[in-house]
Amino acid sequence: MSRVVDRGSLRFVFLLVAAIAADASAHCSSSGFPLVRNISDIPQSNFGRGGLTHATIAGAVSHGMKEVEVWLQTFSPGTHTPIHRHSCEEVFVVLRGKGTLLLGSSSFKYPGTPQEFHIYANSTFSIPVNDPHQVLNTDETEDLQLLVVISRPPVKVFIYEDWSMPHTAAKLKFPYYWDEECFHVKDEL
Amino acid sequence: MSRVVDRGSLRFVFLLVAAIAADASAHCSSSGFPLVRNISDIPQSNFGRGGLTHATIAGAVSHGMKEVEVWLQTFSPGTHTPIHRHSCEEVFVVLRGKGTLLLGSSSFKYPGTPQEFHIYANSTFSIPVNDPHQVLNTDETEDLQLLVVISRPPVKVFIYEDWSMPHTAAKLKFPYYWDEECFHVKDEL
Repeated sequence: MSRVVDRGSLRFVFLLVAAIAADASAHCSSSGFPLVRNISDIPQSNFGRGGLTHATIAGAVSHGMKEVEVWLQTFSPGTHTPIHRHSCEEVFVVLRGKGTLLLGSSSFKYPGTPQEFHIYANSTFSIPVNDPHQVLNTDETEDLQLLVVISRPPVKVFIYEDWSMPHTAAKLKFPYYWDEECFHVKDEL
Repeated sequence: MSRVVDRGSLRFVFLLVAAIAADASAHCSSSGFPLVRNISDIPQSNFGRGGLTHATIAGAVSHGMKEVEVWLQTFSPGTHTPIHRHSCEEVFVVLRGKGTLLLGSSSFKYPGTPQEFHIYANSTFSIPVNDPHQVLNTDETEDLQLLVVISRPPVKVFIYEDWSMPHTAAKLKFPYYWDEECFHVKDEL
């Protein structure tokens, strides 16, 4: 079967592809965005993770930050981060909702039974560098919304399947979900 | 005139001084505080600066952070930061109110006429490293409340008297107002 495509259609497809490419480029550009931005206008996505809404407010890959990165994250009821660790500092400010922080140890071969902490709106906590942890929205109805600050972006995350998995077996996920789209491999890890 | 102080009074003074020292020590300790803290319970002060309320949510001097620091600051109507610069990254999230960001340049001998940006609740902005800047609450009635993230704490601030002051004449204020109480000089600047 021969396919006949007229020049008008080809031109339309070309313009569509160019527009998508330009949009991705603008979204990933670390320059050209306004200095003061409305947080509501910052792209949000679940990055394939059900129940999560993530927006990078100021990021290495998206905005050229080199030393700190700030995220806004919302977890729907019953959802949570993976059990994970990273060798950067991390500070949380809980804006809405409540939940649980589970915190394992980096002192033994595996995280072990985690300590459990109640987290709630207007609370803050920071995760000791390299300690495996998990943040959970344990509420049945309310979202858990967090402002998250990390150092040394972009984040290099090691993911555990459970609390008895050896630290050495935790799997590196890099670039992390929200950095993948714009990430171009560099030598400067 | 001879002064007679009985042993009971001396003991009382000693205990009072010890209690004050212990309190300051607890406030400044980088260990022993709970992992999850209610932000409303974090000490706030104007540190001798009229119209400012500052709380260090996670800090180098107060909590042992090494790479990031998070502040909560409230400026009453008509008040502002000094014109200043620092060689760290800084990200702002405006929680309440509105105002103005004035941003000078580090490319010339002095900041020059600053660019002016409107800042407002739910907006975010970051300050280019070393650019002189000033944040002002220009509203007549409403407070301006900001969450501030900096890298490389504790902050080393260079203060300008005006926008035509040469960068080399800006005066270092270190430790900064909220770090003074707990700061002990270290070799690791």
